[in-house]
Formats: sequence, C-alpha cells, structure tokens
Amino acid sequence: MCAKLTETQAAQKLLAAGRVLILSHAAPDGDTVGSAFALCRALQKRGVSARIRCSDELPPKYDYLFPIVETQEFEPSFICAVDIADTHLFGKNLSGYTDKVDLCIDHHISNTGYAKDLLLRTEAAATCEIIAGLMPFLGVETDKEIANAAYTGLASDTGCFRYSNTTPATLRCAALMAEKGADTAAINKRLFETVSMARLKVEAAALQTLRFYHGGRTAIMAVPYDVIQSAGAADWELEGIASLPSRVAGVLAGVTLKEKRPGYYKISMRTGGAVDASAICSALGGGGHRNAAGCELTGSLDEVREKMAALVGEALGA
Amino acid sequence: MCAKLTETQAAQKLLAAGRVLILSHAAPDGDTVGSAFALCRALQKRGVSARIRCSDELPPKYDYLFPIVETQEFEPSFICAVDIADTHLFGKNLSGYTDKVDLCIDHHISNTGYAKDLLLRTEAAATCEIIAGLMPFLGVETDKEIANAAYTGLASDTGCFRYSNTTPATLRCAALMAEKGADTAAINKRLFETVSMARLKVEAAALQTLRFYHGGRTAIMAVPYDVIQSAGAADWELEGIASLPSRVAGVLAGVTLKEKRPGYYKISMRTGGAVDASAICSALGGGGHRNAAGCELTGSLDEVREKMAALVGEALGA
Repeated sequence: MCAKLTETQAAQKLLAAGRVLILSHAAPDGDTVGSAFALCRALQKRGVSARIRCSDELPPKYDYLFPIVETQEFEPSFICAVDIADTHLFGKNLSGYTDKVDLCIDHHISNTGYAKDLLLRTEAAATCEIIAGLMPFLGVETDKEIANAAYTGLASDTGCFRYSNTTPATLRCAALMAEKGADTAAINKRLFETVSMARLKVEAAALQTLRFYHGGRTAIMAVPYDVIQSAGAADWELEGIASLPSRVAGVLAGVTLKEKRPGYYKISMRTGGAVDASAICSALGGGGHRNAAGCELTGSLDEVREKMAALVGEALGA
Repeated sequence: MCAKLTETQAAQKLLAAGRVLILSHAAPDGDTVGSAFALCRALQKRGVSARIRCSDELPPKYDYLFPIVETQEFEPSFICAVDIADTHLFGKNLSGYTDKVDLCIDHHISNTGYAKDLLLRTEAAATCEIIAGLMPFLGVETDKEIANAAYTGLASDTGCFRYSNTTPATLRCAALMAEKGADTAAINKRLFETVSMARLKVEAAALQTLRFYHGGRTAIMAVPYDVIQSAGAADWELEGIASLPSRVAGVLAGVTLKEKRPGYYKISMRTGGAVDASAICSALGGGGHRNAAGCELTGSLDEVREKMAALVGEALGA
C-alpha cells in the first residue's frame, strides 16, 4: 500500500533525490506532457538533475515546450510518475518501471496506488494544477517555461476550461500561469483551433454518413476505413471525432462507428441524460461509463449501424 | 463629447435613476445579452426598476437566462447601452434611442462616444467583465443569476477563454462567477458544443468544397446558396463557419465564400502572419482588419474562387 503525501512531503522527497526520472503515460496527452516538463524544469532550477521519458513519441503539437537535453548516461536515483493512474498506462517501452516508482503525482480518482508514495488531488482538473501548486513548496519561482507547460495540461484536460471538471481553482491557476508568461492564446490555437487537412477530409466524409433515428434522438456516424486510408489520417488526428454525433441539438445518443480494418468497427457511444451507454456496450462485450462507452463489432456498415440503432431504440423505448 | 466615468460614478448614476432601460446591440451575442441581464438583475436587487430591449429577438441558446418581466407601460427615465460601440449597432427597432443614451458601458476601443457618459474599459475581454466588476460599486452581492449572465459574456467574447483577449483578470473574473454559482459547464455546452442539424449539414457540404492553393498556404471553401436553403440554416446557425479554412494546419489565408443569393457571394478572409486580409478585401470594395476582413463579389462559384485565389497568390508572392 502506498503512502499518501502532502505537497510539503512530496517536494522534500523530490529535492532530496539526486537524479529524478519523470515518466509520462503512453499515448501522451497535454496533461502528462505538461506535468513532466513543468516538474523537470522546476527540479533543474533547484539543481536537481532531471529527465523525462515516455513510451511513445510526443505528438508534434507539443513541440513548443522547451527542449530537455537527453544524455545516454542518465542513471536515475528516483522515479516519479506524473498523471499515470495505473501501471498498464506506462506503455511497452516503460513497463520495466512499473514496480520501481518512488512517487506518483496524479489527479485520477482511479489511481491504483502502485507507487511507493502518492500525491493525489482528485479535486484538481489536471495533474498540471497539482504541479503548478507544488512550485512554492519546491521553492521555485514559476517562469515562462513552467507556465507554458502547466497551462498546456490545464487547457488540455478541461477542453480549454469547457468541461465540468473546471473549478474556480483551475481558472485561478490558469490566470497565474498567464501572469507568469504562458503564451495562452498561441497554445490554445495549437491545441484547439488547428486541424490537419487529413482530419478535415475524414470529418467531411464522416459527416456525409450521419443518420438520425428515433425522431432525432439518436445520431449514428461512420468513419469508413477507406476514408481514413485515403486521407492518410493518423490515430491522433482523429482524436475527439467520436463526440461529433452527440453534439447535435436534440441528440440523446451519439454513436460513431470507426472502421479500423475492413468490416471491423470500433464503436464509441456518447449519451446525455437517461441513456446508459455502458449497459448497451457491455451487452456487446465492451464497457465504459454511463455517458461514454465503447465496444467492437464486425460486419457490413449497414449491419453494424442497424444493430446499434436497434439497441439504442430499445434503451430509448422508441 | 461624452464624459468618461469611473465605476464609482457609473454606479452612482445608475442607482440614482428611477427607471433604467438597458439596450443591447442588434444581432445580439452573448456579451451584450449577458451584460444586459446581469445589470438588470443587479439594479432590480437594489430596488431600481429596470428593463432590457434589443432590436432583434434573442437567439434561443440564451433562454437559460432568468426571465425579465416585460410590461407595456415602462417609461424609462435613464437609458443605458451595454456593449454597443456605435449608434448603427442599435438596429432598426432601437434607432430612436441613439441620441438619448445617458450611459454607455463598453469595452470596444472603437466606441464612438455617442452617449452622455461612458464607462469604457478597453482592457476588459468582455463588457460582462466590466459589469461583474461593477457589482461591489452597486452594493450588490453577485448571485447565481448575475453569475450565469456575466459568465455568458466572458465565455462568448473569448471563445471560452481561447482568444488572445483573455487576460489573467478575465480568468479570475470567470473563477469568481463560477464560485458565485454560474453553471459554467452547462453554459459552455450550450454555447460551444451544441450544433444544429442544419449547421452540420451545411458544414458537411461546405467541407466537400474545400480547395487548397499555393502549396497548402491558401484554403478556399464555399457555402453554396442551395445548401443553406435545403438545410434550412438560419444566419445565427452559420456563425463562425468562416473560420474553418484558416484552422487547417499550414494555411496562411483562409477564404470562405458564402453565397447569400444565387451568384452573390459574401466573402470572409482570415489570415495569419504576413498576409493582409484588409488590403485584399479593400481592393474589392470591402474592408476589415489585417487578419480578418470581408468583401462581396458576384459571379459563378468558379469565377469568384479563381479571383480570390489569384489575389491571395499575389499577396503571397506565389
């Protein structure tokens, strides 16, 4: 069982460590990346040697974060995981570290407590909110680089302060990062405005497949395999596309059928109100939460679409 | 010439007025609506009789704001315009008030000073930021209704805190509104997530017309008249569609050709960096700012598109 630390204790352990290796989770998002960079920079400012590792390459949209000089010979004396709730999220290239983590800093209520010590703040919208709050305890003045990194996580995990996890403290933390020099508008443009041509092509084709059922309460959209292939869209370029059908006014259940291989569909379901997405997806061998769940089906597009429409119809009593 | 007031002076005038009529600008957006509702509610809490008027109907997306009881016999003794920079923005139904405004509260640097008194704060991201800051001067405790209204304007005018007008003070003001009970996540969902079926249909068709020029530096999209008609899309449902081409990674000039009547195009241009949208649009009889401008052209889609592509090409030296 891991020990729950306070900010004071966590800062003491980090400052006492000689060489800290900071780990981000696989398929890195803005929060795990921002947390790692902000903490790395802060420790380096206090004379602690620090490096970052991640199982996967960083998506190019984060390349405005300051460069961390990688040297081959770095031998860590202390391992710190940031924003990693569970060991299976370390990814295949970091799986050797799962039982060697000295400290985990996280905001996920689902954190499994795999680390020796844990600084957990589930009320934080992002791990970056915890890291930003750690600066006074580390004796570090937040500079522009730390502010950019921390703001990246705050904005990423809240959909730019749109989601319900955004608290007054989150907004005040963002205000402080802006004051400390974060390039908020430029970061927002990169994270939320810019889309790739490949994404737009896929979106345009997917929107053409949008069909409504049950008097407009259900919307089903397909993202066909050949469309993804011909657009040359990478997985990260399709991030968030599954939320599209559920954004239509009046829709209670939005379903996206992403054809990963010909005839093999990864299905994402987003629901509001009474429809239990998890129940429908679990019955098909998948799972998830009440308002966001997924499953997999094989068949033709028509078969898969009609099957999902029928199941949602039952749930709606339509 | 109008007199510039401080918050203290503006609050004194409002509290001394017996019956205040608050005016919003035509084609109302979240900031003018939120400002009017927040101020109306605050004055009513202080026993001042207050009403709101707008030349146009409020878009249904703002119907979560508390109802203002309209009575036919309301005879104002004081006229206050909120978020109205210029008299031509009063709209045809309020044009009789343009020379009768006792106080204007605004954040636009372009405010023409048409009112007797002016509370102008150009550093504010939204007029709602000024109104929220006025509450202590009015002696009013910000309640849930005021918080919802003020938050609406803050979020609207900053694109949910994405644009460069967002300052630390804006974020702190939003934090305070959240603390005072604003339903931030629900408002964000309404303002930024929800799209109408008509909008999606138009967007899907418009994306199919997206063409790239000059090695991907120019993107031109058409919004054809028959598409708008068959989708039954109202003007407010197409808000923001003109920013789409400029969001594509690598695009320096994004052009949207909205066909308002068959063969008549309203052209919106969004540019980043070196391309001067205003120069190009001015040469065609339009105008605007360096990075956002517009003009009008008649002709076939091909003619209009090639004309715009050629002019942008010249500007790019392509």
